[in-house]
Amino acid sequence: MTLTFGEVIRHLEAGIPEPHNTVDKLEPGAPETEVLGIVTAFSASHEVIEQALTLGANLIITHEGVYYSHQDRREGLENDSVFRQKSALIAGSGIGIYRFHDYVHRYTPDGIMEGLLRELEWEPYVERNLPHVSILSIPGMTVSEIAGYLKSKLHIPYIRAAGNLSARCSRVGVLVGYRGGGASTIPLYEQESLDLVIAGEGPEWETPEYIRDALRQGRDRALIMLGHAESEAPGMKLLAERLALRYPGVPVHFIPVQPVFHMV
Amino acid sequence: MTLTFGEVIRHLEAGIPEPHNTVDKLEPGAPETEVLGIVTAFSASHEVIEQALTLGANLIITHEGVYYSHQDRREGLENDSVFRQKSALIAGSGIGIYRFHDYVHRYTPDGIMEGLLRELEWEPYVERNLPHVSILSIPGMTVSEIAGYLKSKLHIPYIRAAGNLSARCSRVGVLVGYRGGGASTIPLYEQESLDLVIAGEGPEWETPEYIRDALRQGRDRALIMLGHAESEAPGMKLLAERLALRYPGVPVHFIPVQPVFHMV
Repeated sequence: MTLTFGEVIRHLEAGIPEPHNTVDKLEPGAPETEVLGIVTAFSASHEVIEQALTLGANLIITHEGVYYSHQDRREGLENDSVFRQKSALIAGSGIGIYRFHDYVHRYTPDGIMEGLLRELEWEPYVERNLPHVSILSIPGMTVSEIAGYLKSKLHIPYIRAAGNLSARCSRVGVLVGYRGGGASTIPLYEQESLDLVIAGEGPEWETPEYIRDALRQGRDRALIMLGHAESEAPGMKLLAERLALRYPGVPVHFIPVQPVFHMV
Repeated sequence: MTLTFGEVIRHLEAGIPEPHNTVDKLEPGAPETEVLGIVTAFSASHEVIEQALTLGANLIITHEGVYYSHQDRREGLENDSVFRQKSALIAGSGIGIYRFHDYVHRYTPDGIMEGLLRELEWEPYVERNLPHVSILSIPGMTVSEIAGYLKSKLHIPYIRAAGNLSARCSRVGVLVGYRGGGASTIPLYEQESLDLVIAGEGPEWETPEYIRDALRQGRDRALIMLGHAESEAPGMKLLAERLALRYPGVPVHFIPVQPVFHMV
């Protein structure tokens, strides 16, 4: 029985009202194309596309966009050689790319958050899942110990942490992706009696500067920035597992992301 | 002869048309107050305010805002204990805080950029100063060597670098603060034949993902993220030197910033 791109996408979007101005789309690709194999990944990097071709998969499902812009703005890229080589690779490949961002964040619980908490084996500690943050009560650990645990479970070589690293934490707020900004995170410390916020990324002059002041005032509030890709890739891994269960006749692969930054 | 807050601010803003919706302001503080001493810093952190009091300075000039928000939005902060303790410290101190952001970025060259390039002793290599970026031709060094040089000159313990760290670079674009986003930086590689962009910070799914693709395609393009504070504090140091020359009777101090993140 033939499975098409359109059927997979309809399944992924089922039950979710269309998000306002959604960035989610199938481009390139035609809904009626038969799925030969599926790859999920944080982003459709040049390497992910090449790996999909090697694996014989023709549908890539990614969380972030292809061309380095949330809104897929391409002004200034037209003559760029990296853009052109990637565009040529995609155009000649027959591969379809579906961006799955707004819909999965609107799952209950947020499908990307669920993937991260599952990877951390922290689902039993969830107290509440709010739309943008999950509030957890974990067994007491210091910030350093939590950072070590995150590195080990997520296979990441370094983590950025602010605050008193020796402070013991049990109340933790987790936010994926670019939700680490001050307006999202700072009120949580007081409202949710948090010891620690774990986020993907956010502007450095917002939450980190708040933590700098809290530390100076002798308050044990802490912040860990996992990295944007590092916080969201597990959600795409969970997606691959679920697609493999739903479509047992179709090869489904999750391609993990390597950290883009080296620490020097 | 008495020097007032207002006179210092008029001097700093002289010759620059008022920027549209500027965030620059004296708050708290009255323009007619006599200056007893000046402190410059990246931000008016709790520690910087305490150090200013210890030094007997009553005018703090900072680049970023007091309350963790570019637009000084305070919703959700009213009952926060860190906010309240800092506000009480400021209210009881008699200190004036002048935010000097938009005006100094509109100097020719950008006063914050000038401070960074001077600290790096890279001014002789500047080819062109554009409003948001300076284009340099430096003596050839690898990305790793440049990262080591930046760490040593700016006294920062680590640097995030993406791309081929062994690639030799001579064409370099430098952008301070939050100018590391894709729309600002990606077109520069081609237009200015850059080997390397050095920026303060920017969204991780933009320029870093572009560099990931460039590397995969075998192109030696690289990116270094200095950190927001790390890239802009030298501009506030240069400001202190200039104010000390202009007002020899007034004590002027620059307070450096310690990295807010630990690498774990």
